[in-house]
Amino acid sequence: MIRMYYFTNDYSEGAHPKIMEKLCATNMEQTNTYGFDYHSDNAKELIKKACGRNDADVHLLVGGTQTNLTIICAALRPHQGIFSTVLSHINTHEAGAIERTGHKVLSLPTQDGKLKATQIEENYLQYKNDPNCAHWVQPKMVYISQPTEIGSLYHKQELEALYAVCQKYGLYLFIDGARMGYGLAAPDNDLSLADIAQLCDVFYIGGTKCGALFGEAVVIINPLLKEDFFSICKQGGAILAKGRILGIQFETLFTDNLYENICQHGINMAMKIKTAIDNKGLPVVTESTTNQQFPILPNAMLKKLSEKYLFAPWELIDENNTAIRICTGWATVEEQVSALIKDIEAL
Amino acid sequence: MIRMYYFTNDYSEGAHPKIMEKLCATNMEQTNTYGFDYHSDNAKELIKKACGRNDADVHLLVGGTQTNLTIICAALRPHQGIFSTVLSHINTHEAGAIERTGHKVLSLPTQDGKLKATQIEENYLQYKNDPNCAHWVQPKMVYISQPTEIGSLYHKQELEALYAVCQKYGLYLFIDGARMGYGLAAPDNDLSLADIAQLCDVFYIGGTKCGALFGEAVVIINPLLKEDFFSICKQGGAILAKGRILGIQFETLFTDNLYENICQHGINMAMKIKTAIDNKGLPVVTESTTNQQFPILPNAMLKKLSEKYLFAPWELIDENNTAIRICTGWATVEEQVSALIKDIEAL
Amino acid sequence: MIRMYYFTNDYSEGAHPKIMEKLCATNMEQTNTYGFDYHSDNAKELIKKACGRNDADVHLLVGGTQTNLTIICAALRPHQGIFSTVLSHINTHEAGAIERTGHKVLSLPTQDGKLKATQIEENYLQYKNDPNCAHWVQPKMVYISQPTEIGSLYHKQELEALYAVCQKYGLYLFIDGARMGYGLAAPDNDLSLADIAQLCDVFYIGGTKCGALFGEAVVIINPLLKEDFFSICKQGGAILAKGRILGIQFETLFTDNLYENICQHGINMAMKIKTAIDNKGLPVVTESTTNQQFPILPNAMLKKLSEKYLFAPWELIDENNTAIRICTGWATVEEQVSALIKDIEAL
Amino acid sequence: MIRMYYFTNDYSEGAHPKIMEKLCATNMEQTNTYGFDYHSDNAKELIKKACGRNDADVHLLVGGTQTNLTIICAALRPHQGIFSTVLSHINTHEAGAIERTGHKVLSLPTQDGKLKATQIEENYLQYKNDPNCAHWVQPKMVYISQPTEIGSLYHKQELEALYAVCQKYGLYLFIDGARMGYGLAAPDNDLSLADIAQLCDVFYIGGTKCGALFGEAVVIINPLLKEDFFSICKQGGAILAKGRILGIQFETLFTDNLYENICQHGINMAMKIKTAIDNKGLPVVTESTTNQQFPILPNAMLKKLSEKYLFAPWELIDENNTAIRICTGWATVEEQVSALIKDIEAL
Repeated sequence: MIRMYYFTNDYSEGAHPKIMEKLCATNMEQTNTYGFDYHSDNAKELIKKACGRNDADVHLLVGGTQTNLTIICAALRPHQGIFSTVLSHINTHEAGAIERTGHKVLSLPTQDGKLKATQIEENYLQYKNDPNCAHWVQPKMVYISQPTEIGSLYHKQELEALYAVCQKYGLYLFIDGARMGYGLAAPDNDLSLADIAQLCDVFYIGGTKCGALFGEAVVIINPLLKEDFFSICKQGGAILAKGRILGIQFETLFTDNLYENICQHGINMAMKIKTAIDNKGLPVVTESTTNQQFPILPNAMLKKLSEKYLFAPWELIDENNTAIRICTGWATVEEQVSALIKDIEAL
Repeated sequence: MIRMYYFTNDYSEGAHPKIMEKLCATNMEQTNTYGFDYHSDNAKELIKKACGRNDADVHLLVGGTQTNLTIICAALRPHQGIFSTVLSHINTHEAGAIERTGHKVLSLPTQDGKLKATQIEENYLQYKNDPNCAHWVQPKMVYISQPTEIGSLYHKQELEALYAVCQKYGLYLFIDGARMGYGLAAPDNDLSLADIAQLCDVFYIGGTKCGALFGEAVVIINPLLKEDFFSICKQGGAILAKGRILGIQFETLFTDNLYENICQHGINMAMKIKTAIDNKGLPVVTESTTNQQFPILPNAMLKKLSEKYLFAPWELIDENNTAIRICTGWATVEEQVSALIKDIEAL
Repeated sequence: MIRMYYFTNDYSEGAHPKIMEKLCATNMEQTNTYGFDYHSDNAKELIKKACGRNDADVHLLVGGTQTNLTIICAALRPHQGIFSTVLSHINTHEAGAIERTGHKVLSLPTQDGKLKATQIEENYLQYKNDPNCAHWVQPKMVYISQPTEIGSLYHKQELEALYAVCQKYGLYLFIDGARMGYGLAAPDNDLSLADIAQLCDVFYIGGTKCGALFGEAVVIINPLLKEDFFSICKQGGAILAKGRILGIQFETLFTDNLYENICQHGINMAMKIKTAIDNKGLPVVTESTTNQQFPILPNAMLKKLSEKYLFAPWELIDENNTAIRICTGWATVEEQVSALIKDIEAL
Repeated sequence: MIRMYYFTNDYSEGAHPKIMEKLCATNMEQTNTYGFDYHSDNAKELIKKACGRNDADVHLLVGGTQTNLTIICAALRPHQGIFSTVLSHINTHEAGAIERTGHKVLSLPTQDGKLKATQIEENYLQYKNDPNCAHWVQPKMVYISQPTEIGSLYHKQELEALYAVCQKYGLYLFIDGARMGYGLAAPDNDLSLADIAQLCDVFYIGGTKCGALFGEAVVIINPLLKEDFFSICKQGGAILAKGRILGIQFETLFTDNLYENICQHGINMAMKIKTAIDNKGLPVVTESTTNQQFPILPNAMLKKLSEKYLFAPWELIDENNTAIRICTGWATVEEQVSALIKDIEAL
């Protein structure tokens, strides 16, 4: 029997072995609960240092949807909504999590997965200048993902422009960093964690897709968003009783550049695949320099590859061609990538 | 320096070593996500077997507050509420999680932490017989904890009576089993998991306090409560991307009676302490045969013990006496219990 | 000083004089409260008769946004959403009312203000056939307005097709009839109230814009939507203590065809204006046979007319032309319409 | 046939004739909508003047439950709750309206329907001093009714003490004045509208029970509660399209002391009945100097009186005695009161 190799996503394995080691080594320690333990304290300090923001509040949550809904729930008043792209995770794959907190996702069109500063300004002014604007949902937050849901990256200039517009109109800028590590490691990335921590109101550093069993580290920059955040988490069922499990994981990830290094591996694997795709002359749905690649394959080719590898279906292009997502990550096995490349070349 | 020993709660350590072993052994496996992996499937089968309910739906969630709010959110329409004791976890320690889902906790008085069948009937009829009942919150669910928040246990006859009243009036009976394992192991317990699975509409088997890193296994009996439960979980941010982490833990706990055995240890430790308290002639806040004990200590005695052990403060009885909670668990070290007993005897 | 005449909307005046008469005549009667009075009973019977549905439940609410949110809140489970056009009232002018009840408005594109049966089917199947559909908002209701927000009308064949698709996929069809009276009176209308009451699950007959001080009569056809509707209204603050005020108004509107007759007047006035617009060769944003007309005017012409009449601004077409909404209604003064037409002709 | 006279409540009739006159006189006026008309402007100015608070924001809403839920929804963040008595309207007769907005009603015991400053302080400190207070609902608002649900009145000293405690701990004080007019007219009242407007953060002046068809005038004192209040109303379906209907009513009530005078009549009628009850030696459930009286009657006596008058049942005292509520109001007919008194005396 041939065992299929998963290129479907970046969370098909457990955690980086160093995390498992540390969890085992500390397993029988007795610690304080709900995240008030010394591992969590240490993790938060390490993260603040990595972000160059000693004034930030850091909270360690379990998952992405949970983090998105908690931040939005904590930040907004009932009549306020969130600008995001139509492709955004909060607009598509969270089963209405944001609406359940009572807020409208004000979705905007996008080609490359990104929002533009001008787009925010136009849409905000359309609201603001309407004489009946009090009958509309009030835009109050801008949600972006770095990298985006389709693998693209905001560059420094873009983020600066976006944040400038947000500040001009009193909008919170919130960056979903579920795959932040892969963004940081992308070849064309020009934004450090410290830059990001200067250019938004709140963001998070994803663990689930970047080497942890689970976990997202929320970094709150804007003091207005800090008050009682823990209680809002607790109320939403987002506080882990054994909070140290999160603390230990982020402590490990932010020691000796582990987070950086293992995400770099994911990017290296993706770039090899990207080169193979390009060399083969396969079109792509969207250009990506991160760990998700979106080639369009003739169906016969896809069928052949699918005998050995699993991919995420993306889109039926036409009756003969299909777009797929090939996703690498911290755990991607280099031999499998080499085999995949050879198989692509051979087709 | 003397290192303090925590008798404060049953979630101060990590997970039972067998769980950590299994997590490490399976760590680099690639599996399906969101709980659709073979470990989760296996765990669910084992749990259904342990409950003698092949027709049940099992869902593995992360934490207790999350589980409570998700079940209530999925079960109730907007105008419906939940009977529980004033001491119930949902009424006190969840930062208003249930209200955030839109539902009123209809709290009822209790001495022993339990609700009585007659109490439910009286209160339900008070609602039902009010000519303006449509202006009231409609009671639709009864929430109890087994064992209760103060360590007491429902016995078979009590639960049968309660469930009969619920069925008579169309109320769902929901049992929070965050400490279920300690209830099952209590010396005076007469309710098996299979009994419980016959005497309610939905319940959960706690992992977080019973040897897991985290995790609660929801067992849905009533078909009316099954529909789209996964989506409601997803919407609330309660689905773990790497759902297998939950699957592996419950798979381990329900293999070779691990769940039963390790909780029995917690109870054995508690009973030793209970005997010591009784022998010393110390009064208690409430009789408990489970892993939480609530002795009332003269302050001098408490101060002395507090040099070596940590307890959870419970209640200031008067200026000279304080009630505390002593909590044991699957991880409680027998030598520490012996030492504590010796220290109690010596006072 | 010239007093401007309002063609801005159909709720600039009070109520039809017969309603005021009846309110005054019954003013000092003592009646039961919360809608359990004999006027309300009578109104409900008259409405059921007009709809030919003795099996319907009728509820009298105060306003449109309130009615929309209450029906949706009562009908849906937390993870479910509503298909509507991007132009729909619930998607635009209700300040996020639907999202506050927790539900996502799944907006679909439209040219003529209407949803098509094929569009619903395609979008529903896109959801249903997605292997990860449990991560999406579940479509469960279709919301349409008759007439639509831009004055167009569903014809019988269209509504039949739409309802057939809804029934095929278990979707509720909900018709917002805030301007129902004007739809019924439109020259090309082929749907009676009795037809509508056969072709949806729930709808309402608008009073606010059709001659009442306020009030919307909800007609619930589908038994699944009937249970405890009053309590859901009460919970949302939608129950008038002196419910008779609603009862008296609808009792009057549904006696001697008043509702029909006064809305017919509104349509007659609109058709006169429409003819004048057409005769003048002015383009329109959208064809409408109901009481809202959307001509595009050269700015000079608009400026001139705006010296005597108020219109609702609709859209800036280009730097020289502006679209406006001209709205007539039950109260529109024929002399003002004649004057307006003369002024249009004179331009 | 004898027509029964309703002493059941203070909203069994329509509106004060002067209101109906004004509504009729202005009926065909064309005005701006949503409360931006000159009647509403005028009403707001008159109310601000009556309250001596030119800095207040005034909003005119339709009903009591709607007003309560809107104010609370606008004021609180998700994890915050409201102190009120167990008897409070928000805790009992609103079908869970407050919980639907996501907030817990933190109900406190009461004998006389009132909250005491010391009670708030104790309960707030119990929260604040709990080391796990972040797991509790955070008290942020105090809700009281003036007069209370059982007819009692706060006096100036009590309200000053209450407000001082609220200010000390950062709690908003919210006064439900659904029956404010009867409180102002009570013989032992020492609080003017201007006093009240100095001693709380937000309150409302009830119209529904005090001579209007419907309507509650919200007076917002604390600037923190003012922002975007209109949008929150709109989102909850609480904005009347023809807002002028509210404006005209309050304009009339606050002209020539109408509000004061007609409520004084209600109180005069109640005091006559109170005297008759006292003279007859009938016990009462609670002392009341406002328009609700709560005598305890032998069943035979109640049966006799019930042949001619309707009362609200209040409580079964024992098998021979029943407590009832006798409610007078602006519309109570003096001849009926005289007849009732004669009938009481005759028993």
